[in-house]
Amino acid sequence: MKWWGSDKDRKNERVYLDWASATPLLPEAKVAMEPFLGSDFGNASSIHKEGQVARETVEGARDRVARALQTRSEYVTFTAGGTEANNLAILGTVNYLHHNERNYSEMEIVTTRIEHPSVSRVVEYLSGLGVLVKYVDVDEEGFVILAHLRELLSESTVLFSVAYANSEIGVVQKLHRLKKVLREAEERFGSKIMFHLDGAQAPLWLNCQMDSAGADLLSLDSGKFCGPKGVGLLVSSKRAKVENVIYGGGQEAGLRPGTENVAGIVGAGTAMADAQANWRERAQIARAVRDEGIKILLKDIPEAILNGPSGEYRLANNINISIPYLDTEYATVWLDSKGFSVSTKSACSGAGGGESVVVKVVSNNSVRASSTLRFTIGPDTSISQLQKLANNLRKFIDKTTNL
Amino acid sequence: MKWWGSDKDRKNERVYLDWASATPLLPEAKVAMEPFLGSDFGNASSIHKEGQVARETVEGARDRVARALQTRSEYVTFTAGGTEANNLAILGTVNYLHHNERNYSEMEIVTTRIEHPSVSRVVEYLSGLGVLVKYVDVDEEGFVILAHLRELLSESTVLFSVAYANSEIGVVQKLHRLKKVLREAEERFGSKIMFHLDGAQAPLWLNCQMDSAGADLLSLDSGKFCGPKGVGLLVSSKRAKVENVIYGGGQEAGLRPGTENVAGIVGAGTAMADAQANWRERAQIARAVRDEGIKILLKDIPEAILNGPSGEYRLANNINISIPYLDTEYATVWLDSKGFSVSTKSACSGAGGGESVVVKVVSNNSVRASSTLRFTIGPDTSISQLQKLANNLRKFIDKTTNL
Repeated sequence: MKWWGSDKDRKNERVYLDWASATPLLPEAKVAMEPFLGSDFGNASSIHKEGQVARETVEGARDRVARALQTRSEYVTFTAGGTEANNLAILGTVNYLHHNERNYSEMEIVTTRIEHPSVSRVVEYLSGLGVLVKYVDVDEEGFVILAHLRELLSESTVLFSVAYANSEIGVVQKLHRLKKVLREAEERFGSKIMFHLDGAQAPLWLNCQMDSAGADLLSLDSGKFCGPKGVGLLVSSKRAKVENVIYGGGQEAGLRPGTENVAGIVGAGTAMADAQANWRERAQIARAVRDEGIKILLKDIPEAILNGPSGEYRLANNINISIPYLDTEYATVWLDSKGFSVSTKSACSGAGGGESVVVKVVSNNSVRASSTLRFTIGPDTSISQLQKLANNLRKFIDKTTNL
Repeated sequence: MKWWGSDKDRKNERVYLDWASATPLLPEAKVAMEPFLGSDFGNASSIHKEGQVARETVEGARDRVARALQTRSEYVTFTAGGTEANNLAILGTVNYLHHNERNYSEMEIVTTRIEHPSVSRVVEYLSGLGVLVKYVDVDEEGFVILAHLRELLSESTVLFSVAYANSEIGVVQKLHRLKKVLREAEERFGSKIMFHLDGAQAPLWLNCQMDSAGADLLSLDSGKFCGPKGVGLLVSSKRAKVENVIYGGGQEAGLRPGTENVAGIVGAGTAMADAQANWRERAQIARAVRDEGIKILLKDIPEAILNGPSGEYRLANNINISIPYLDTEYATVWLDSKGFSVSTKSACSGAGGGESVVVKVVSNNSVRASSTLRFTIGPDTSISQLQKLANNLRKFIDKTTNL
């Protein structure tokens, strides 16, 4: 299973525990990309042979994604990443309605306060345009509080956005319960409430089939499921209507103008097929390693507190702990020097210091929020690697505490 | 020089004459990308070793671009393509002003009617928000009419946008003259008028140094200068102020949120360095081939009319002719079967039929506009290939005329 990393890294035994921020490119995906970084360089909008090859490749990748997610190809839009997919889902939905005679001030969006910046910043922007943004409470483990969601939904609610799995604390939302609440509200108000899932962390570890997710809009990021960086996906339901957020040519049915990144798209399609074909087995293995890792960490470091839930509704590869009063920023640098790649929080919230917004919200505790460590394991991470991590972390704590 | 195309294509002697829509990836760029499609897969925002390697690579590419364009690295923003760069330049400028207390209705933009959809659709969108969009006339060759530009500029003009080289008819604007008119207006009104150049067609054939271009904002597309698809660049002047158009993390100084496409960015940096290092020699060779090709085509096909200017101010690799009443859409398909990859117009305006907006504007002639053929040559295109093209085209015309 150790198909990533250079030989040198393997000898140095680097232990990469940051799968939430970047995943290695699946070798098959790389192979699929090769021709399009070589002789097959055509523009998919051209009608000559080179263009046709590109067009067939893009559409073939779209079909693979659609099959993996059990949806129709026409509902799959390729973007330049998860951030753009989230923007297209949220801004695109609101702008579609806006250009169909609905004022910004007549629309409401419900989301949580633990979303990724590519969701939270979009709704803040929309708030500036007059859209009412309501924040539903989450409990101490990060689950949306259904009663509060029920309370917040109104006849003006056009969209509910939440991460399928939170990138920091790994809470996996109970989609069926959320969907039920949304559906009830739709019936009550005779309205449509688009259910947007930020699925960036999902494909390697969770079922992403559109009908089982129950989502209207699912955003994905190729670079987080062993595809290339710079490619994202927005998958829509039949009833979802979005408008493009950047303007130009008619590519991607007008939703995403610009010459298609053929190599990236075929890589993403290949990676998605593999991710979803094997998610269950992959998750099962990772979950066992994760649970053993959590056990070891909490045993060796009794001062550590687990952030996020335990069990089935924790993302299979996510471990997140707080070690109150520890300078965990420094800890990541020190662990890096010992060969462990770990993070304190989401890479997109900036590498710099500062507390984790997510942990602050769920714990309401600044000490916990400013002492987080996130370990996101891969399919080949071993328990012995996590034991070594715990040993090193113990050493670091003792060292710094004795200063 | 024949460094693109598979051996099979070479044997089949395919003649690729659509460099305006897609260019092959420079082998050096591919080599530079390889590690980042392999073991060096880190997220540039992560603080561990894998992240640092990614960060240094992105910044190294930015430095190479800055050196090639004789500007400072901090003025270079990586996007997901030329379309996004044009959006960021135009929307980003207007939105920056809008969020600094200037109403949309107090802003004017001047552009032409021969711009690429990634410019024309953006200004149409802004027009819907209340920005006054004024279209400056171009002459029969596509040059901006300076007297009309002078007339249109007002104290409300915030931006003037034009293509450095038009992607269809190859007209290269006389930047110094445009800049002079803009500067005079700025002095007259005591205002700032951002000069935006869509430079998508420029890097292989024209000087793109920021100070000689005199632009405030220069948009570029890696896939058009032998870099990978899915990467673009916005280069700003010191005084240009733009705001992000999609929302998320703080990457690219906040101007372009989303995990950096490290492989794509390093490929773009490498390709840009090569493109600009050799543009003069490359253009000189292409210009000679182009002029001979035009001569041959006009001689063998006397019914053909050249669109765009001749000489120095025609893009070195661009040939565009109209053959009145010919079904040129069908001609491209037929030529493709004979091994020639050509186009009728810009790939981004859609592969489908319909007249060329650009040729319609410059010629005011629907017959000419609906019978265009564009041949955009590469550094290794030969005169004998263009002679063969002319022979085949002659054959096609005679064949269809006799029907």
